[in-house]
Amino acid sequence: MTPKNIAVAGATGAVGAEFVSVLEKRNFPVKNIKFLASARSVGKKITFKGEEFAVEEMTKDSFKGMDVALFSAGGSQSKIYAQSCVDAGCVMVDNSSAFRMTPDVPLVIPEINPEDVKWHKGIIANPNCSTIIMLMAVYPIYQLSKVKRVIVSTYQAASGAGAKAMKELEDQARDFLDGKPVKKEVLPYQIAFNLFSHNTKIGDDGYNEEEVKMIKETNKILHDENIKVTPTCVRVPVLRAHSESIVVETEQKLSLDAVRSAIAKFPGCQLVDDREKNYFPMPLEVSGEYDCKVGRIRYDYTFDNGIALFVCGDQLLKGAALNAVQIAELL
Amino acid sequence: MTPKNIAVAGATGAVGAEFVSVLEKRNFPVKNIKFLASARSVGKKITFKGEEFAVEEMTKDSFKGMDVALFSAGGSQSKIYAQSCVDAGCVMVDNSSAFRMTPDVPLVIPEINPEDVKWHKGIIANPNCSTIIMLMAVYPIYQLSKVKRVIVSTYQAASGAGAKAMKELEDQARDFLDGKPVKKEVLPYQIAFNLFSHNTKIGDDGYNEEEVKMIKETNKILHDENIKVTPTCVRVPVLRAHSESIVVETEQKLSLDAVRSAIAKFPGCQLVDDREKNYFPMPLEVSGEYDCKVGRIRYDYTFDNGIALFVCGDQLLKGAALNAVQIAELL
Repeated sequence: MTPKNIAVAGATGAVGAEFVSVLEKRNFPVKNIKFLASARSVGKKITFKGEEFAVEEMTKDSFKGMDVALFSAGGSQSKIYAQSCVDAGCVMVDNSSAFRMTPDVPLVIPEINPEDVKWHKGIIANPNCSTIIMLMAVYPIYQLSKVKRVIVSTYQAASGAGAKAMKELEDQARDFLDGKPVKKEVLPYQIAFNLFSHNTKIGDDGYNEEEVKMIKETNKILHDENIKVTPTCVRVPVLRAHSESIVVETEQKLSLDAVRSAIAKFPGCQLVDDREKNYFPMPLEVSGEYDCKVGRIRYDYTFDNGIALFVCGDQLLKGAALNAVQIAELL
Repeated sequence: MTPKNIAVAGATGAVGAEFVSVLEKRNFPVKNIKFLASARSVGKKITFKGEEFAVEEMTKDSFKGMDVALFSAGGSQSKIYAQSCVDAGCVMVDNSSAFRMTPDVPLVIPEINPEDVKWHKGIIANPNCSTIIMLMAVYPIYQLSKVKRVIVSTYQAASGAGAKAMKELEDQARDFLDGKPVKKEVLPYQIAFNLFSHNTKIGDDGYNEEEVKMIKETNKILHDENIKVTPTCVRVPVLRAHSESIVVETEQKLSLDAVRSAIAKFPGCQLVDDREKNYFPMPLEVSGEYDCKVGRIRYDYTFDNGIALFVCGDQLLKGAALNAVQIAELL
């Protein structure tokens, strides 16, 4: 790959910091790089490959001469700057939900639908973190047999609500342990030693926006409108990795050995399924890791062709920055 | 009810402390009460209705003259003392799993199958905490239509592993926040800012003992071998209340209004289901409460007659001490 000019938009956020580390660690061929954020972050320093860069204010001119812009600055910022990227010939890889369901924007998990990158018209969307982590576990099964249904309950980390939510979890835990009242500034309810239904708007059908994303994005990524998904999204007091308890029903009966082998072989997945030692995926053990870990693989008791499993993945990495950089690598 | 002579066995544990508070608060008619524990707890003081009692060592003679023994001293202790209770004409209400699946021992949730108390032969078993909390949410639906399947993922509090596990969660959180290595003495993995698959033995089918309890106890309590259950049991960093994400498939199509109304009317259940305010059951808000809270009631997208819901219940109260005292009240 010829070295690229890269813009990192939302450079000072939780995902922004991971963009930097992933670009470095994967030795992404960077010609020039610039770090963009809102006016109030201008002048902050970011170190990339030993060199210090000052954060610049993002403007509509920021993308001229750039090849790829990695965006994680929130959906409203993505909408403001998308046309500027397109006009500048700079491909926007967008971590927000702004364009995920736009028909002419590919929604890509590189291990699953890399070919969708080809038909982009200047914008490629990074899926929702819970969708990515779920599909990393479900797709190896889907390759063996079409999946009819997925019932999934999530255990989502504070990082999904940003760096401030991660700090809020730590601050609340400290205050709670000290017997002090806990402060709620980012999340609507106490998250330390508690959990609550995902705090996104609820639609008429009773599903919150996070759950709707998991349903619709699955259909789009797999190009399969027949796969039915019922998600329940829950925030738990974990810092940066999501866990998901999943039951799938497949069209054909699969052996557990075939499922295990498919997951173990799938790029980006590790099989962690030691019944003897009671050792299965844990969010702490995938924090900072690129791979998702999958285990608890067993037959479901309620379907003829049902399989239950449990997956953990780093929300900031495979759920966000890593997946976006992998998309950029496909370009 | 004529006042009863009550023995509390395992009086110094997490559930033992709740037996005392529940007997007091419900004004259970107590004639005499004694508090039993192992030799190493002898002499510890327990205050009941303003009076101080010394903990006595549990022996096979402890139950003479007693009417009811509330047991939460672990399964092995229950097995040792069951015959002594029966011989003394003292009804054992046992919180352990020792006798739950014994055919001539009733397994009772008083709101669901109180009539089963009648055929006891000296021992009545208190169901597993996760089973109780699940069925408190599912049974009001079951009364409207038979339930064919239940898919449930749990978010289980540290209290299920006892008072020491609750303290371990707090200690680990403190050490983790201070950047110190965390100590693991009670639970096999770090629980603070982490979660893991329930640490009970895994059978050949890949289900752990906690999950097997949820399946078999449901069949026994409902006297229905046809209801299929697939549980995934997970421990989360919460102190004393369990949460469960549940999908049920019913035989008949039910309206959500009928489900909501059935749950709201069911004794021991509160409907907490405010979509507008994004306010649903949370473990922190049921901690110390007798009622289970149920919400997130919506149609499931994967079944024709599927309903999704979320329940929280205090593991030490409705999941243990309260349910046992309610059983004693039925006698």
